[in-house]
Amino acid sequence: MGVNKVSVPKGTRDFPPLEMARRGYIFGKIREVFALHGYQPLETPSMEHLSTLLGKYGDEGDKLLFRILNSGDFLRAIPDGDPKAVGAERIAPLICDRGLRYDLTVPFARFVSQNWNALPKPFKRYQIQPVWRADRPQKGRYREFYQCDIDVVGSRSLLCELELIQIVERVFARLGLRVELRFNNRKVLSALAESIGQPELLIPITVAIDKYDKIGLEGVQKELQAIGVSAQGIETLSRIVEADGSNVERLSALENAIGNLEQGKEGIDEIRTLLDWVETAAVQLSVALDLSLARGLNYYTGAIFEVKALDCKIGSISGGGRYDNLTGIFGLKDVSGVGISFGADRIYDAMLELNLFPEGVENAMDVLLLNLGDEEVKTAMRIAGQMRERGIRAMVYPDSTKFKKQMDYANRQGALWVAIVGSDELANGTVGMKDMQTGEQVSLVAGECAQWLERQLSKA
Amino acid sequence: MGVNKVSVPKGTRDFPPLEMARRGYIFGKIREVFALHGYQPLETPSMEHLSTLLGKYGDEGDKLLFRILNSGDFLRAIPDGDPKAVGAERIAPLICDRGLRYDLTVPFARFVSQNWNALPKPFKRYQIQPVWRADRPQKGRYREFYQCDIDVVGSRSLLCELELIQIVERVFARLGLRVELRFNNRKVLSALAESIGQPELLIPITVAIDKYDKIGLEGVQKELQAIGVSAQGIETLSRIVEADGSNVERLSALENAIGNLEQGKEGIDEIRTLLDWVETAAVQLSVALDLSLARGLNYYTGAIFEVKALDCKIGSISGGGRYDNLTGIFGLKDVSGVGISFGADRIYDAMLELNLFPEGVENAMDVLLLNLGDEEVKTAMRIAGQMRERGIRAMVYPDSTKFKKQMDYANRQGALWVAIVGSDELANGTVGMKDMQTGEQVSLVAGECAQWLERQLSKA
Repeated sequence: MGVNKVSVPKGTRDFPPLEMARRGYIFGKIREVFALHGYQPLETPSMEHLSTLLGKYGDEGDKLLFRILNSGDFLRAIPDGDPKAVGAERIAPLICDRGLRYDLTVPFARFVSQNWNALPKPFKRYQIQPVWRADRPQKGRYREFYQCDIDVVGSRSLLCELELIQIVERVFARLGLRVELRFNNRKVLSALAESIGQPELLIPITVAIDKYDKIGLEGVQKELQAIGVSAQGIETLSRIVEADGSNVERLSALENAIGNLEQGKEGIDEIRTLLDWVETAAVQLSVALDLSLARGLNYYTGAIFEVKALDCKIGSISGGGRYDNLTGIFGLKDVSGVGISFGADRIYDAMLELNLFPEGVENAMDVLLLNLGDEEVKTAMRIAGQMRERGIRAMVYPDSTKFKKQMDYANRQGALWVAIVGSDELANGTVGMKDMQTGEQVSLVAGECAQWLERQLSKA
Repeated sequence: MGVNKVSVPKGTRDFPPLEMARRGYIFGKIREVFALHGYQPLETPSMEHLSTLLGKYGDEGDKLLFRILNSGDFLRAIPDGDPKAVGAERIAPLICDRGLRYDLTVPFARFVSQNWNALPKPFKRYQIQPVWRADRPQKGRYREFYQCDIDVVGSRSLLCELELIQIVERVFARLGLRVELRFNNRKVLSALAESIGQPELLIPITVAIDKYDKIGLEGVQKELQAIGVSAQGIETLSRIVEADGSNVERLSALENAIGNLEQGKEGIDEIRTLLDWVETAAVQLSVALDLSLARGLNYYTGAIFEVKALDCKIGSISGGGRYDNLTGIFGLKDVSGVGISFGADRIYDAMLELNLFPEGVENAMDVLLLNLGDEEVKTAMRIAGQMRERGIRAMVYPDSTKFKKQMDYANRQGALWVAIVGSDELANGTVGMKDMQTGEQVSLVAGECAQWLERQLSKA
């Protein structure tokens, strides 16, 4: 068996009860809101055929896929001789047919393509599952982490975009996290590339503009120059990226720059309609048109979103957009969809930093019933049963150890109450109930104990 | 990009919304009960070091591990020359350092060993996560499936065993599934091997007896003969395995056979105490001592359990037992624990077969608000917002398509109500609310619609 490393692989984590309770709180609120809007859960397998995954995330992404070694005699498929002469990169696909999913988007597109005829349209789903990337681990970046995606496919209506904005609003309101949402539209970016006479540079331009937040205007200008944007083009793009003021003022800057182009008109129309819906729906969230927002992912074709926490510097905690041909790679054409992803780890970090987890969320129990002897514990056990019937989380300490040790356990597990059945209580048919926050103790008739505690807990 | 197989890997499954809703129902009930007893959630990474996994499941198990190809130049670690000469079995460990978890028990033991000093004692955790086995897929057997484990470590009290029995009772009561629990004790099996003078055969004897359910007495006797149990030994074991009657009668059969042996006494004492506790706690579940129950896993050292559904032939749906040295393999000695595992897939199948999922569990929404035009939908949107504030799952149809198409969608998604805001309603400030079960329709003042629906839904 050799020496066992008692550790987890680099970049992966155990989630002990405390973290699980907090994460469960976040996911619970998110699921609640998704369900309120009629979204339904989906799960896909952890592994996919490598043919499903490869080529979807760029060359860099392909390298970051975790591949699963084929079972049995996996060497059969490689050519005779020393494989080092062939190279790891060309051997890998011969000995691995499957890989771990890299995100939830491609498996979703695969699922939709495979089941399109059987799905209701629009199909609204959410998916909360781990993904794996063989990235270099660093602070806040893991090799296994949860994604939390919500998408609607099969409708081009901007009401879908509005709904995602409403969901963002409601999720963060319920979590108590103040955020702002910025949005833009890819059609506007296309029209801008067209307006400066360099439509072929759309993607590199998008990538450059996307860095505005990090490298500032000058940085973006350098990048634009490097990819061959003309001096005049750089000036036009700079004016747009820097456009200040209200949503209305930004729209009019756009109108001037690209209002005469087909794509420009469409993009501006979509922005205007969406802002209209946002007003009608009385969205309270700050929704700002940000013409410097580009988002790196190339499959977006319409609206794009990004959400940032207002009270801490933690980067984007949610983002997404509309795509018109995500399922095309799997042979299903003309299915438009729009989706948004919530970054669970960053939301967690932000909530921890801002102290937003409600008190008691990590408490494992409402009451610990002490074990003060073989006869005493029988009564404790019966009372615990009555408590659980009322929905009270009750634990009987299993061993009849020292009083202090059991009290320490209650404290540590965050028990709100301790129930004491010692020899006196047993003789009197009573139970001592100790409030662990105030330290006060009352004596109750054993049979009335569960009902009494239920009232106390519902008051708290 | 080549041809994409649009399918999932063999032995894996997508869980579409309907299955997710049903599975969520099962997991929800199970979690609820676990929490009522003070158990807390834990999650461990999907991948572990292979050194953590190898050698824990026997040779057969080792072969069924999914291994993850090392990143980068994984060939560097293999000797020069043709690896086929070395063989796949010896090459695999050189190019893979990690594997997917095979069960939840070994990762749990790894976690406990790693964090023992920091953990509360007893440590009560549950874990609901997928596991992976490169098994030949067949009906009801998958390469990726969920396990649902609950364990308590750090206490030798039989109250822990009792609690697991109570949890089994409560889980299946809440799911509406009638079950029986059979139990035995490994010490009794040890004493039996000792009593026939062949203690060294304990494990093969256990394995043989474990098949009693499948191959009957004669089959077991043949196996016992094959592994070298004496004729007299076979007679003794047969009498025990076949022992009929009440728990008390079976105990007395045991008393006669092994009551004079140390291990026998201990085992009988534990059985008697546990039956005592079961009575004191007024457990309603059928709890039967079954001396033919052995359970294959070698790490059990005390009580062992198995749960079967009474109304369908689906095999064991839950099982577990006490182990005294699970963490020993990771260097942590003398930590006793007891746990039980719920088979989510089999519970699902049983509930489906017996039609036990409550009506409406798979409904995606309470109400669909139709989209009958750009102005009409603005009102629908506002009302939907009011409904969601009251916890009503409300969806606005995003596209202003044909009435019939939208009604079909409502039907298909199991919407209980449809809210109609057409041009007449818009003019009158009303909403038509159609009950999708009765087909009846009422007209309401728009502003009172949400409150009215909340009342209707709470009545249902």
